[in-house]
Amino acid sequence: MAIVEVSVVPIGSPCTSLSEYVADALAVLKESGLKFQLTSMGTIVEGDLDKILDIIRRMHETTFAKGIMRVVTTIKIDDRRDKPNTGEGKVQSVLKKLK
Amino acid sequence: MAIVEVSVVPIGSPCTSLSEYVADALAVLKESGLKFQLTSMGTIVEGDLDKILDIIRRMHETTFAKGIMRVVTTIKIDDRRDKPNTGEGKVQSVLKKLK
Amino acid sequence: MAIVEVSVVPIGSPCTSLSEYVADALAVLKESGLKFQLTSMGTIVEGDLDKILDIIRRMHETTFAKGIMRVVTTIKIDDRRDKPNTGEGKVQSVLKKLK
Amino acid sequence: MAIVEVSVVPIGSPCTSLSEYVADALAVLKESGLKFQLTSMGTIVEGDLDKILDIIRRMHETTFAKGIMRVVTTIKIDDRRDKPNTGEGKVQSVLKKLK
Repeated sequence: MAIVEVSVVPIGSPCTSLSEYVADALAVLKESGLKFQLTSMGTIVEGDLDKILDIIRRMHETTFAKGIMRVVTTIKIDDRRDKPNTGEGKVQSVLKKLK
Repeated sequence: MAIVEVSVVPIGSPCTSLSEYVADALAVLKESGLKFQLTSMGTIVEGDLDKILDIIRRMHETTFAKGIMRVVTTIKIDDRRDKPNTGEGKVQSVLKKLK
Repeated sequence: MAIVEVSVVPIGSPCTSLSEYVADALAVLKESGLKFQLTSMGTIVEGDLDKILDIIRRMHETTFAKGIMRVVTTIKIDDRRDKPNTGEGKVQSVLKKLK
Repeated sequence: MAIVEVSVVPIGSPCTSLSEYVADALAVLKESGLKFQLTSMGTIVEGDLDKILDIIRRMHETTFAKGIMRVVTTIKIDDRRDKPNTGEGKVQSVLKKLK
């Protein structure tokens, strides 16, 4: 189980708002059934790494489908194999120590 | 007003868990009074860009203070000046289009 | 043709030097035949996006094969489809304007 | 001495080519006297961390000066304090192990 953050950014888009592009990419993720959290700086997905990368590949493509000719996609993978790795667990572990 | 995501990662730490390092960096951010959200992949901060960068510089230092000799810090700045840029506004704007 | 930057970072490695891990990941890339450039902050690969992502998936795995239990891999894709997108072309285009 | 990679990306730019924006940001860096390397995916700077962050803050501003209303700037800091950290040293260390 990996936790992956992804952000898909169109270059040369007609306006400064990107929400319509993010919504299209997110629609693909939503229908995948993978667990995800939308944040103000990207989308965090949890699950099988290969499945996640496959979906991200399709999310990347949605922006070209809207007529954009250049896309910058950033992917950060946190893959931990010594114990269960969940987003909720990571956050709780920090908050407990922060007090 | 900028939205900035930051992640501070120790290299060569004695264990695979990083929550104690994240908690120390977060303590500095918390006492700054800046608005922030801890996610499973980083911390998102909102406010004046110069003030945020100043705090991040100090968050970066907390990991060395714990005896770590190498730190990789990643910062992503989203700075929008044509209209108010808030994390909550960005997320709502996407969700409205996602339906 | 995409240009992709990748960095594979072990968490909880026994020392602060990461070159042996980078070398192992790079060996996989080298034998793929893809065009790449090693920089001090990552590795830049050029070619077919699907082929590159497939190789990066294997590069990510080399660090676990060395006994590391947690790996953070960062991937940045620059995918441009309105004209040929080469690393050399991008750099030359900037230098020409920089004078 | 830190090694820092930076990339400044305009959002909503009139065309897909970004080289004129990169050239303007680079002009600021060039006149700072800091050692840097332009790559196809960003710019790598070496030197005192505070000085570098100060210059990056000014590089970020050059894109707004060209009329762009939204800028995404990504900064990755590799700060190592147990031994000298140079870009050339890092690359050579990997190549030696890669054979």
